Amino acid sequence: MKIIGINVHDIRFPTSLDGIGSDAVHVDCDYSATYVEILTESPELRGIGLSFTIGKGNELCAKCIDYFKPLVLQKTILEIEETIAEIWQKCTNHSQLRWIGPEKGVVHMAVAAVFNALWDLLSKYYKKPLWKYIVDMESSKLVKKLSFRYLEDAITRGEAVSILENKRRDLKNSSRSIIESGFPCYTTATGWLGYSDEKMTELVKQSLQDGWTHFKIKVGQDLQRDIHRVKLVRDLIGPNNKLMVDANQMWSVDESIININKLKKFNLYFVEEPTSPDDILGFKKIKENVGNVNLASGEMCQNRVMFKQFLINRSLDFCQIDSCRLASLNEIIPVMLLASKLNIPIIPHAGGVGLCEYVQHLNIINYLLITDNKTYLSEYAESCCEHIERPAKVVNGRYITPQEPGYSAVIKPSSVESYNFPNGKFWSSKT
Amino acid sequence: MKIIGINVHDIRFPTSLDGIGSDAVHVDCDYSATYVEILTESPELRGIGLSFTIGKGNELCAKCIDYFKPLVLQKTILEIEETIAEIWQKCTNHSQLRWIGPEKGVVHMAVAAVFNALWDLLSKYYKKPLWKYIVDMESSKLVKKLSFRYLEDAITRGEAVSILENKRRDLKNSSRSIIESGFPCYTTATGWLGYSDEKMTELVKQSLQDGWTHFKIKVGQDLQRDIHRVKLVRDLIGPNNKLMVDANQMWSVDESIININKLKKFNLYFVEEPTSPDDILGFKKIKENVGNVNLASGEMCQNRVMFKQFLINRSLDFCQIDSCRLASLNEIIPVMLLASKLNIPIIPHAGGVGLCEYVQHLNIINYLLITDNKTYLSEYAESCCEHIERPAKVVNGRYITPQEPGYSAVIKPSSVESYNFPNGKFWSSKT
Repeated sequence: MKIIGINVHDIRFPTSLDGIGSDAVHVDCDYSATYVEILTESPELRGIGLSFTIGKGNELCAKCIDYFKPLVLQKTILEIEETIAEIWQKCTNHSQLRWIGPEKGVVHMAVAAVFNALWDLLSKYYKKPLWKYIVDMESSKLVKKLSFRYLEDAITRGEAVSILENKRRDLKNSSRSIIESGFPCYTTATGWLGYSDEKMTELVKQSLQDGWTHFKIKVGQDLQRDIHRVKLVRDLIGPNNKLMVDANQMWSVDESIININKLKKFNLYFVEEPTSPDDILGFKKIKENVGNVNLASGEMCQNRVMFKQFLINRSLDFCQIDSCRLASLNEIIPVMLLASKLNIPIIPHAGGVGLCEYVQHLNIINYLLITDNKTYLSEYAESCCEHIERPAKVVNGRYITPQEPGYSAVIKPSSVESYNFPNGKFWSSKT
Repeated sequence: MKIIGINVHDIRFPTSLDGIGSDAVHVDCDYSATYVEILTESPELRGIGLSFTIGKGNELCAKCIDYFKPLVLQKTILEIEETIAEIWQKCTNHSQLRWIGPEKGVVHMAVAAVFNALWDLLSKYYKKPLWKYIVDMESSKLVKKLSFRYLEDAITRGEAVSILENKRRDLKNSSRSIIESGFPCYTTATGWLGYSDEKMTELVKQSLQDGWTHFKIKVGQDLQRDIHRVKLVRDLIGPNNKLMVDANQMWSVDESIININKLKKFNLYFVEEPTSPDDILGFKKIKENVGNVNLASGEMCQNRVMFKQFLINRSLDFCQIDSCRLASLNEIIPVMLLASKLNIPIIPHAGGVGLCEYVQHLNIINYLLITDNKTYLSEYAESCCEHIERPAKVVNGRYITPQEPGYSAVIKPSSVESYNFPNGKFWSSKT
């Protein structure tokens, strides 16, 4: 069974019209996907992968994928499975493209889309949901598919195998539990910065009725307004539900210290991205000056080398891996393994397009195979789920474990067609 | 005087044919430029700027610039001069593009090309070489044009003004000295990894005759071959000339420690990029385990936030800023100011296309206005200088101070035409 074609689409949904996704720096997100379809000799078997972006520039990620096609085309699925680590290394370490990275930004996100599609393809080939395909794989075989390059000083392949093997001892119980109970998540959908007090109030009340217990809201534009919004939501949800805030990098290190100290009386479960996502040492300085407030970061953490430092330096308390910014499982699983070694909880970033569909698998892999940490939590925001064939299901604040083959983030063909940029029906009608 | 047009060219020179630029990871560089021409109402006055890349992906940087054009077009030159900090902030913090950065990789390098062109335009408007335009500007006015965002915990604008003012006291003497004596540099052109022993021997001998005293060679493919090459060059240049090696990120942290300890008997002036350019803490660990060997890094250091950490953490001994990876003077000067505050020498990365032309100005600005550190050194490699209108001049291992208006990296129109990718004469004849 060979790979015979790769189609790439620039898909953009006009979410900016409703203020969805708006925060202190991303004021006009059009939730978008660099969308990859890998075609095989069997018309029924297609690998689908995406990278989430927020509009402009999506075409750059899409265009970059052209360079990776020759590394995949005409290979059989079993060749892909056997050599996925080598192909990944050739893409991330491409001798010319690495200059405009390396392993960060546009090029790395293009790699992510391709490998999200390859992992989808492999798990569909074996007719298993992605999480099950990974969990069923022998530990040493799995570790060989991952990249530990530049991580070896923090975690070795041997340690990785030990972590996996150790978790397997309880696999029967843990599998039953995850299938029966699902995986807990928090909602971001009630507190976008573009929402009025009235809209937030209504959404929080509805979410409480729907069983949510963890709420995140955006801050970072104006401290007085931030305090007002945080107080509003804290009053609505009461003292026992959890409240987090996300500043989306708005503050300097010193401003972060001042502002977090003013906000912390509202008992924050964590503060996300107070400052630059690149500032490992800045995060540490903030942590040292805000008492016991926990920090979270990761949706803009560019690669495993940055996560390594955030983790070993204890610059963050919650590690928010992103399924499309890290270059797919090859890099995500090593970060989760290192976090496990250091007993730091993973709380994946989600929302956007397809991210909830991806992280539901990553959560289960982490829970079943990797972490012993007892903090189980994941983000959820139902944005764009109307365009997904089988969107992630959340009931009572828990992701329902997916059972269909693949990695789940498949956009409906009609939406692919309409929202193709700039020639799809929706966008061509706008010009 | 208004800006009335912006042309962007994807220019690629086929340097891979000669092994120029080859190192352990960049085995087939085609030295390239994302090339920006800013047109004004006066046909004689054009701002020219570029970002250096090594081939594939150059078109992504070029394409990205389309998004920045509306922020510049139709503005007068005086408006640009007045608001260059705000325009820079709008580009680097673009509400949608920042998702595929932020401030790193393709998007950031596109910003660099645009602002290199704007600074070129401003200095040409005042009929001064760029360095002179900057040096003549009032300190507080200069500082207002720079970005200190996320740097404030390490250096304030007030400290920046003090550094500048302090250096101005000796400006008359230091200006005379730089004009009379030029600025010292080292050569990288003798030790590309693709070169045979014979070719290296011949080039080193020639360079010694030409007055060079500092030599850098590439290592990182095979330790025994590295040792052989380092010994070869050390024997050729004798014990008094300086020898540096560049591993181009080939090693893990632990390998770096082992390999540097094996190479250090050859008395290395510095070891460049032993491991990932993102690994601030890894560099520090290496430093702590190789005795008094100095480390250098920077050509792949993505932005000022990363440099801030490398500098305050003392993870490097020599700060190799890149004139096209950092987003032009708006970001480069703040990094140089911070390095000055911490007394860490700047040794800019050069070579490639246009980089020598750029760094000759940066060196002078640093020397006259910013640093008190007595280590004066800059990289030089004469690659592609045949395509530059007025290439940087080096005599006896020293850059001659440029006196023509502008920022100097202007490619000959005939070369722009021939090497335009893929439709220029050279490339279309290849297909």
